[in-house]
Formats: sequence, C-alpha cells, structure tokens
Amino acid sequence: MDILPVLEAFAIILVSARLGGALFERFRLPAVLGELGAGIVLGNLSLVGFHGLDDLKSLPTVEAFAQVGVLFLLFQVGLESDVGRMVAVGLSATLVAVLGVVTPMLLGFGVSTMFLHDQNPLIHWFVGATLTATSVGITARVLGDLKRTNSVEGRIILGAAVIDDVLGLIVLAVVSGLISAANAGQPFDMTGLALIVAKALGFLGVAVVVGRWVSGLTFRFAARLPGEGLLVSFGIAFCFVVAYLAGRAGLAPIVGAFAAGLVLDDIQYKSLRERDAKKRDLRELLEPISSFLVPVFFVLMGMGVDLSAFAKPGVLGFAAVLTLAAVIGKQACALGVLEKGTSRLAVGLGMIPRGEVGLIFASIGRTLTLNGERVVSDTVYAAVVVMVAVTTLVTPPLLVWRLREKRAARSAAAS
Amino acid sequence: MDILPVLEAFAIILVSARLGGALFERFRLPAVLGELGAGIVLGNLSLVGFHGLDDLKSLPTVEAFAQVGVLFLLFQVGLESDVGRMVAVGLSATLVAVLGVVTPMLLGFGVSTMFLHDQNPLIHWFVGATLTATSVGITARVLGDLKRTNSVEGRIILGAAVIDDVLGLIVLAVVSGLISAANAGQPFDMTGLALIVAKALGFLGVAVVVGRWVSGLTFRFAARLPGEGLLVSFGIAFCFVVAYLAGRAGLAPIVGAFAAGLVLDDIQYKSLRERDAKKRDLRELLEPISSFLVPVFFVLMGMGVDLSAFAKPGVLGFAAVLTLAAVIGKQACALGVLEKGTSRLAVGLGMIPRGEVGLIFASIGRTLTLNGERVVSDTVYAAVVVMVAVTTLVTPPLLVWRLREKRAARSAAAS
Repeated sequence: MDILPVLEAFAIILVSARLGGALFERFRLPAVLGELGAGIVLGNLSLVGFHGLDDLKSLPTVEAFAQVGVLFLLFQVGLESDVGRMVAVGLSATLVAVLGVVTPMLLGFGVSTMFLHDQNPLIHWFVGATLTATSVGITARVLGDLKRTNSVEGRIILGAAVIDDVLGLIVLAVVSGLISAANAGQPFDMTGLALIVAKALGFLGVAVVVGRWVSGLTFRFAARLPGEGLLVSFGIAFCFVVAYLAGRAGLAPIVGAFAAGLVLDDIQYKSLRERDAKKRDLRELLEPISSFLVPVFFVLMGMGVDLSAFAKPGVLGFAAVLTLAAVIGKQACALGVLEKGTSRLAVGLGMIPRGEVGLIFASIGRTLTLNGERVVSDTVYAAVVVMVAVTTLVTPPLLVWRLREKRAARSAAAS
Repeated sequence: MDILPVLEAFAIILVSARLGGALFERFRLPAVLGELGAGIVLGNLSLVGFHGLDDLKSLPTVEAFAQVGVLFLLFQVGLESDVGRMVAVGLSATLVAVLGVVTPMLLGFGVSTMFLHDQNPLIHWFVGATLTATSVGITARVLGDLKRTNSVEGRIILGAAVIDDVLGLIVLAVVSGLISAANAGQPFDMTGLALIVAKALGFLGVAVVVGRWVSGLTFRFAARLPGEGLLVSFGIAFCFVVAYLAGRAGLAPIVGAFAAGLVLDDIQYKSLRERDAKKRDLRELLEPISSFLVPVFFVLMGMGVDLSAFAKPGVLGFAAVLTLAAVIGKQACALGVLEKGTSRLAVGLGMIPRGEVGLIFASIGRTLTLNGERVVSDTVYAAVVVMVAVTTLVTPPLLVWRLREKRAARSAAAS
C-alpha cells in the first residue's frame, strides 16, 4: 500500500475543489458547481496533451474516500431532516417518485425505439430503465448550500429520491431478469423478483421502524462508556451499518446513510453531547469531516465526465435526445406535488440529476447479452455518460434560480 | 470499487476501538492500548477458528484510511508543538537520536551474531538496522492522552524521532547498498548514498525554513477566497503536501505531517479562523476527523500482530533476545538528555516503540539476497514482527507509569 499517490491526489483535489468553489461563489453560484467544474478540468487534461493526472481517476483509495464522503453528506442531510416532517409529505413524495420513474422510462423507451430501429424492445426498455433513478447527492448539496433542506420542496425531493431508488432497483431487476430469461429462452423468474422487492422494502421498514429503537439503544449504551470521541465514533458507525444494510438489500448505500440520519435524533445522544467539552452536536462534529471528504466526491464526479464522449460519431444526437427525455421525464414529478404554495417546478428540477445509479445500470447492461449482442452498446453507454454529466451539471444553476426566485417572490409579497 | 466491505470493516473497527478504549480507561490506562488490544483480538480470531474477519486485514482502502489517520495524528501533534521550543531541545534531541540509533544497531548486530552463527556479518548489520527507527505514533498518542506533548520530555522524544528517522534511512541505505554491492561483487556506490542523505536533509531544511514561509503564503491566499471550510481544506492539503514531499525524500510521510504541523502557526490563519461561525482553530476542526480515523490506525496496527508468529520453533528465543536488545538499546537515549529536572527514563521509554519502519526494513531485507540466500530469513522476519509487537505494546503502560510518577513526585515536592 503506497500512500504517496493518494496524498498527491488529495492535495490536488482539495485545492482544486476550493479554487473551483471560490470561483463560482464569486458569481453567487453554489460551490458544488465549482467543484464539479474543477473535476471536469482535472479529468480532461489529457485531451490537451497533459497526462500527469491520468492516474488520479483510477486510484481506488481516492474513490473509496469519495464514496465515504457522499455517505457523510447524506447522513448530515438525514440528521437535518425529521421523520415526522418527512412522513407529512409522504404521499406527495411517493407520487413524485412514481411519476419520476414511469415517465422517464416511457420517454427513454421512445427515444431508443426512434434511434435504435431494428433492436429488440427489451433493449429499449433497458435504455428507459437507465433514466429512472435520481441521484440525490447533487440536489441535497444545493439544498444545503441554500439552507433549504427542510423546506417542503426539499423534503419532497429527498423522500421521493429514497422511494425512487427502491423503484429503480425493481425496474432494473425486472428488465434485466426479462432479458436474461429471453436470452436463455426460459420463462421469467418471479420468485427472484419477489425476493428483490422484499429485501428493499424490508430494509426501509427495518431502517425507519427498528432503526430508531436501535439508535436509541446504541447511544444509551455508548453514554455509559468512559472516554472521549464516542459521539462521533458511534454516530459514524451507526451510519455505516445502515448504509451497509442498504447495500446488502440491493439499494444504494447513500439511501441507508440518509435513513440513518433520519432516525437518529438529538435527544438520543443528549448525554454524550453534554460530556463534550464544547457541547458539540453530531452535525457540528461531522462538519469538518464533510469539509474534507465531500468535495472529494464532487471533484471525482466531475472527473468522471469524459468530454471526448461528446465527440463520438452518432453519440451526440442520441445523447442530446436521451438527455432531453431524462430532463423532461422528471418534470412530470411536478404533478405529484399535493401541497399548496409549493414550487412544483423546483421539485421537478431537483429530481433531474442522474448519477452513479444510471452509470451502474448502464454498466450492468454492458454485461448482459441478448441474441449475442450487448444490451448496452458503446453508443448507448457513451450517451448515458453524457446524460449523467448534463443532468448533473444543469441541476444546480436551475434549482438555485428557481428557489431564489421563489424566495424573492415571497419577500415581495410580504412587503 | 465495492464500498460495502469497507463500510463493514469500519463499523467493526470503530466500535471495537471504542469498546477496547473504554475498557482500558476504566482501569485508568490510555485508550490507545485498548485500541491495539481490540485490533489484536480482531486480527487473531482465525486462531480460534473464526474466519469471518480474515478479509478485514487485507482491505487496501481501510489501510489507506488508517495511514491517513496517523498523518492527522502527527499533524495535530505538530500543531501543538512549536518550532522555537523544539529548537530549544535540539541538541538533546540530536544526541538522543544518535544514541538511539547506534546502540540498538550494535546490540542487534551482537544478538544476530550470537544466534545466527556462520552467517555473513553484513546480515548481522542488517538485523541491527531493523532495530534503529523509532515509530513515534504510539508515543505521540500517549503523550497526547496525558497532555504532555509540550513537556521537555515530549519535545525531546518528538524531535529525536524525526532525526532518528533520517538516521535510520541512512543506515538502511548504507547496509543494503553494501549487501547489494557484495552480492554483485562490486564496490559500494558512494554517490547513491550521498544522494539519499542529501534528499533527506534537503527535505528537513525545506520543511522547516521554506515551509513556514509557504504556509504563510498559502493561508494569506486562502483568506482571500470566498466560501466555507477553507481552513480545514487548506490545512489538510498543506499537511498532505509536506507528507508527500517527505515520502518522496525517502522519509516516512508522518515525519512530513509532523513538520507541517510544526511550521504552521495559528497567526497564519487568524483571518480564516475569524470567518468561521464558531471561531474554531485548526486543531479543533481536525479533532473529529482524528476521532474517526486515528483509532482505525491503532486497531489495524493491533491486527498486524500475528500471535501465531510467537509459536514458530526457534523464533521465540531469538525474538525475546532481539526485543530485549531493542528495548535496552533505546535506554541509551537517556544519556543524551542534557536538560536538568527531566525524566531521562521517560525519554528512553518513549523511544522504545518500533513500528512500520522496522517492518519495512525487514521486508526490504526479504527482497535482498546475499550468496543466494535471503538476507532476512523467515525466522528473522517473525522475530522482527514479535519485536515490533512487543515494543509497541510495552511502551504505553511504561510511559504512563513513568510520567505519572514524575508528576506525583513534583506535587509531593510542591506541597
């Protein structure tokens, strides 16, 4: 284990993240955009002939730090959220999630049918499936930057993203199950599907109902131990355990991290907090860790945007239409919002970003074959990469614009 | 990159670390011993037939987090130290370091001559070399736990450990150079040696003289950027850059992390601190990160202790005598302490631990051959592992005992 390349990578990533963030903050844009931008620059220097940073992208250690970083982000978002207030928007969140899965899937199917003629319909469904799952990291960060995590819009988006992840998982299971069955000439395995659904729903039940009780027990136990730093250690361990369980249930670990924060309540660790010399709560303790790790995630996300993918022949047209389908598809979410006085547009915009989940779907598609051909061809894969990049990049400015406009309208109405 | 095993490993490590630490704190022993103990238990469960955690030891990601953790520890120790006060004990530190390298080397040579008869004297010198370098992590942590980092003893030990690392590097270069030359039947390459020495000394010069100036510049620049979290990002980036340079100069990266903390001064980041909502300084910001990562390092260090190594035939006797040589050898350090009223014994005890550097030397020895045989045989390697384990484990209780006794004697004299 050679630590030197890791240190080099971190130094470059941390400084670039801050420089990029500062540049965007100068123009009153959220820092996260600057971090993504810094990543895009770092990740594409090879296009202008500089190869000194090529290894940076493929250091598994740095990627692990980034993935742990996004867990901290969602854990913090969960800590700032409240189960009761999430349940209050539960119906809207569910509707938003369902609409936000069905519409992009149908649109994706349509786009794929249009561009990839003579292919099996199952392939078109698979392309549709890659458009379903919202990647909530970007939106959560923008909401946090604007201090709007607990707004009605914020809660609906976060709740919908969790449900959306479960639905996306089911969609992937069904479509890839159908493809595998068709390929092998066998009937579709319903038991396997039922198991996947049961695991995902089981996780959510356990996380929300049992999790609250377990977190209470954990911190009562921790409070009886002597020593310092218990709050931060047990808090992180709890987050990691729930994230791990989410992963084992087939969901994204960030869903688990969010759930961990959601069920964890200040009151549960009150006595540990009292023992801290500066009476810091868990959010305050996690803040420096996030300052360190979260930008690593966003820079790496930016580095994953391969600008040369835009240039491949045949990709650009397909990618543009697919991206449009991805963006428009999520605007159907606006119809699911039942609360009055809520910016429906903000919810639709907040659901746009597709991230690692879309890429994971696409890479699973590359391992599947149907009648001897790969389900996700090079063209489709490049288009998905472009779609992920564009949806990630357009969301922050659009969301900032919409939420600021809403606030301005409110202030104007109030005065 | 599958994050799930990493999350599982972290949850287990964090909770075990806290449980082990709490157990030892109940008996008024430093938490670090409990973390090492927890690691030894986790790492040796396979001996009692439980193999569920075998993978934990070999996860490179977890090891990387641990290595980054020990950098944070030494960075914090450096931040608590002060260049001026370190220079004030510079002469003693240098003497302590020289005595602490020469004596264990001679004793190791003697022990090797005794046990491994008919071998080439160069092999005995190599065994001696594995005993030279102090691993300052354990001692730094114990000094911190007892709030004695800035005592005269603490400063001498920390200063000596830095110099000691440079000397150890030179010794390794000379001995392995001599072996390679002897093996190839060529004369010893003096230019290569001079280069190694120049790089190590160059690094120290750059770190202490230029580093202070660079850190000033860095934070003046950072203070002009907008945004939050700049202090922690730039602080960590600075630490990583200096640690990286230390590594490139052939030294242990922790030497660089310590140097980074040493040259960084509160005044340099005063304006960034003023901007923080809670006026936190860098030490306070790093504390939660250390709470998270430092125990990972010590648990992993414990896991590296292979209890079955103690049982190999022929190992135990050689290991016992080698360990004795390692412990006694560093007691010569006491003679180097010039300051009056200082516990010479505490300095000698604080220099005992050998850690990763000893293991690195031994593993380099395994790659070297002399007349067709490996310089470091299986027996020698197992003995070095035992020596590292024992010196690591005996130091905390001995040091605690000695420093508490000194404090008690002082209180008695004062009353």
